[in-house]
Amino acid sequence: MALADITVALAQVDPTVGDVDGNASLVAGTVTVAQASQVDLVVFPELVIPGYPPRDLLLKPAFIERCGRSLENIAKTTKGITAIVGTVRQEGNALFNTAAVCTDGKVVAYCDKTHLPNYDVFDEKRYFTPTSRWGLVDISGQTMLVTVCEDIWVDDAARDEVARNAELVVNISASPFYAGKGAEREGVVRRFVEKISCPVVYVNLVGGQDDLVFDGGSLVMDRDGRIMAQAPRFTDELLVVESGRGAVAAPVGRDEEVTEALCLGLRDYARKNRFERCVVGLSGGIDSAVVAALAARALGPDAVLGVTMPSAVSSKGSVDHSRHLAANLGIEFQKVPIASMVDNYMDALESFFEGTGSGVAEENVQARVRGNILMALSNKFGHLVLATGNKSEMAVGYATLYGDMAGGLALISDVPKIQVYALARFINEEAGRELIPQAIIDKPPSAELRPDQRDDDDLPPYDVLDPILAAYVEDHLPMDAIVAKGFPEAVVCDVVRRVDANEYKRYQAPLGIKVTTRAFGSGRRMPITNRFRE
Amino acid sequence: MALADITVALAQVDPTVGDVDGNASLVAGTVTVAQASQVDLVVFPELVIPGYPPRDLLLKPAFIERCGRSLENIAKTTKGITAIVGTVRQEGNALFNTAAVCTDGKVVAYCDKTHLPNYDVFDEKRYFTPTSRWGLVDISGQTMLVTVCEDIWVDDAARDEVARNAELVVNISASPFYAGKGAEREGVVRRFVEKISCPVVYVNLVGGQDDLVFDGGSLVMDRDGRIMAQAPRFTDELLVVESGRGAVAAPVGRDEEVTEALCLGLRDYARKNRFERCVVGLSGGIDSAVVAALAARALGPDAVLGVTMPSAVSSKGSVDHSRHLAANLGIEFQKVPIASMVDNYMDALESFFEGTGSGVAEENVQARVRGNILMALSNKFGHLVLATGNKSEMAVGYATLYGDMAGGLALISDVPKIQVYALARFINEEAGRELIPQAIIDKPPSAELRPDQRDDDDLPPYDVLDPILAAYVEDHLPMDAIVAKGFPEAVVCDVVRRVDANEYKRYQAPLGIKVTTRAFGSGRRMPITNRFRE
Repeated sequence: MALADITVALAQVDPTVGDVDGNASLVAGTVTVAQASQVDLVVFPELVIPGYPPRDLLLKPAFIERCGRSLENIAKTTKGITAIVGTVRQEGNALFNTAAVCTDGKVVAYCDKTHLPNYDVFDEKRYFTPTSRWGLVDISGQTMLVTVCEDIWVDDAARDEVARNAELVVNISASPFYAGKGAEREGVVRRFVEKISCPVVYVNLVGGQDDLVFDGGSLVMDRDGRIMAQAPRFTDELLVVESGRGAVAAPVGRDEEVTEALCLGLRDYARKNRFERCVVGLSGGIDSAVVAALAARALGPDAVLGVTMPSAVSSKGSVDHSRHLAANLGIEFQKVPIASMVDNYMDALESFFEGTGSGVAEENVQARVRGNILMALSNKFGHLVLATGNKSEMAVGYATLYGDMAGGLALISDVPKIQVYALARFINEEAGRELIPQAIIDKPPSAELRPDQRDDDDLPPYDVLDPILAAYVEDHLPMDAIVAKGFPEAVVCDVVRRVDANEYKRYQAPLGIKVTTRAFGSGRRMPITNRFRE
Repeated sequence: MALADITVALAQVDPTVGDVDGNASLVAGTVTVAQASQVDLVVFPELVIPGYPPRDLLLKPAFIERCGRSLENIAKTTKGITAIVGTVRQEGNALFNTAAVCTDGKVVAYCDKTHLPNYDVFDEKRYFTPTSRWGLVDISGQTMLVTVCEDIWVDDAARDEVARNAELVVNISASPFYAGKGAEREGVVRRFVEKISCPVVYVNLVGGQDDLVFDGGSLVMDRDGRIMAQAPRFTDELLVVESGRGAVAAPVGRDEEVTEALCLGLRDYARKNRFERCVVGLSGGIDSAVVAALAARALGPDAVLGVTMPSAVSSKGSVDHSRHLAANLGIEFQKVPIASMVDNYMDALESFFEGTGSGVAEENVQARVRGNILMALSNKFGHLVLATGNKSEMAVGYATLYGDMAGGLALISDVPKIQVYALARFINEEAGRELIPQAIIDKPPSAELRPDQRDDDDLPPYDVLDPILAAYVEDHLPMDAIVAKGFPEAVVCDVVRRVDANEYKRYQAPLGIKVTTRAFGSGRRMPITNRFRE
């Protein structure tokens, strides 16, 4: 087997979008390390030079030029080694997403991406021209086919024909996370290997970029579909594979992978945007508890400030459970009572509201006072405000715009409520102790915006709501198909109506971190003005 | 000339996205009117059945099926007339953006779109498959080529060859507005006519859909490039063209077209989302004055509530000028003083803020109290809150998230400050009297969030700022190219830095209405985490 004859390093690195010089240094430094380890071939992820996804930076000629110059500088460092580096390449008016093959000081080949994803969160046809040229390259005495991400996810007879003549196929990827994606990705590589009977070196990006997390898990699969080496997920790694073998990281379970994805997404968002600290409004409920626990896990307890903001309708538990949580996590805890502020608004609005019953308007004032307090702390001290709403709430609009929706990052806004509970249990299990007080996990969910309020006064129970939402939001099923799954028609109809009616709120929601197959945001582009109901 | 032998109606209609049944009724009703006027051919805009842009509704199989059934019903009404109707067409796994030719009760041909725009606000490659088949169709005894929007914006030799054999070319469009687009569009049709020497019937959509306004201006151009008939812009119209001639609407000047676009965008957003009234925070400044005046023009004075919310640092003019404005416009005027509310926050935050100097955090509290008041009125009474920030502010982040940025629609967020002044002057000229008090137009711009604050304490003067922003945001020019236009390097560098640093704010901004070639929002997709500076 050809792979056995060379030493390959899988450079699962974490670049920063737009930081072309920094990314180039990261690549060059990694090449140097690989050279010192007698590596023949070092492989970097897709678009490692610009970072992924660079989005409309790709429309700036100065950005493309900078990427070009950086690649030349990297190529100069490749003495006695070959580096495959993901970047952009301009040719006339066409821009290509390419794998540049650099060896002995020069770029010796460009292998351009053929299949450009333009669905879900992807917009590659906005920027790139596809190529239809498949060609083998000779690298370190081996005949290789170099492909870019989507190229091996799509059936392509022309590619298979060429691949069957290769001794090794390389794929450089920037494949974003959702729960279950790791296993799916291995399946994709395996199906490909089975068709072409050739080993594959698969290198995936790692790191957080806005709403996306790239989870790594780079691997080498032999021609029989066995994983011969695999980098750990959710962390950077230079995995050296000698004689076709290397370390194989342990697989990661469902709750752990979602936890790791959220922590990496938060950690990289904070680091790459230079936030040193974050602040979380603690309500005494499960959502803010999980957000605070994830933040402490991702950034360290010292980097987290928890603030309880009790109003006249807050339960005693709201403050006590939050204090208990903060003590367990070891984070700073502060209290800002808001009852008098809320009263002050009610006085100011009295003449307008006279004769109306108290309702959502009054409840939202409370939530927005809290939002204002957190934002004031953010503006004063530079803290990142973490919004605490979960996906179920965001879906049906059970959240206050500019209130609990306020923040720079809505950490769990793509996590359905039932999964939030699972994360809470996982966090406690992993810690081996009660980080999130059991009282918080056990209490009935409540927005606590009016006395004795419970979520199930306003919403179906979450074990009904969440599967309806998954069917409607993630799978685009029509109402009758959801009813056919066994849910009451009136409930389905009401949920669907709420999802549609709250598009305007989600439009203004902070960034969330994608952990499901279809997150609100760039992966689901619905009109706000929309009269379709079915 | 062939066109002279038939009577053609250009159906410049205003459908609603997702309202398939309603849009189908609109089309069928228009066909009936055309039949009564002895029309041979009635032409509707691109995607009139689903509405444009339907975005991810196109991923719902139930939506596609509904569009298909509606077309069949429309076809049945075409007795003695031909209708060309924009809709979607599924064939296997492929979805086409198509012009359906219906005559005598049947769909007789589908002319699918070839060139799918996937730049700026357009995502058509996310949904549609392009066709490369150009074919003539025989309609009312005439040989015609039917094209869809982008198809005539792109050079295409295969199309030209076919078009030269046609007696008439039809183009159905959904071409969104920006300032100057009307003239550009006529130029595109004329260049095409010059190449093929064949008359063109061009039918454009009209109406507002979220951030986009479609400005109509449908026209008939003869083979010599003369406009033989043209529908007015910014309003629906069934323009009947007999013997190759019809009415020709007067052209519209720059300030008028921007005013009309904003009014149509607001009117349709309110109507299609069933808002009866809007509320505007009146600061005494030019931005809120223009927003209130546009709202009164678009919706009528009774549909507008102006609220002044003076704080301890507001000038006397803030209230007096606002009251004067409201009286001129004939809108309801209310006052909600916020000084005590702001004090209350400062008390609550005192222990945190002790020893820090008063700054942006304190200023933003004020702005967010105002946002909270307006949102409370919205939540209580169902009013649409109009945010008042202009494009220059949004670009450099000179606006408060959840404060003055709060609202359902940011009416002038794509209007640069200098253009805001031009709109104010146009509004007064059009009215023939001082609707916007001259004192408001003359005063130095100020956010009034601290005593004696002026915008030019914090920002370059707008006649410097606006052209720098146009170069950077709309044209993607690098800093050195902007400096080369004659702007000071330090100023350019500071402006660029601010634009980049405020991506996170704009991510959470309400919908705005696109009136420039590149608006923030779906037409400019920048990463938030982004280290590129050039």
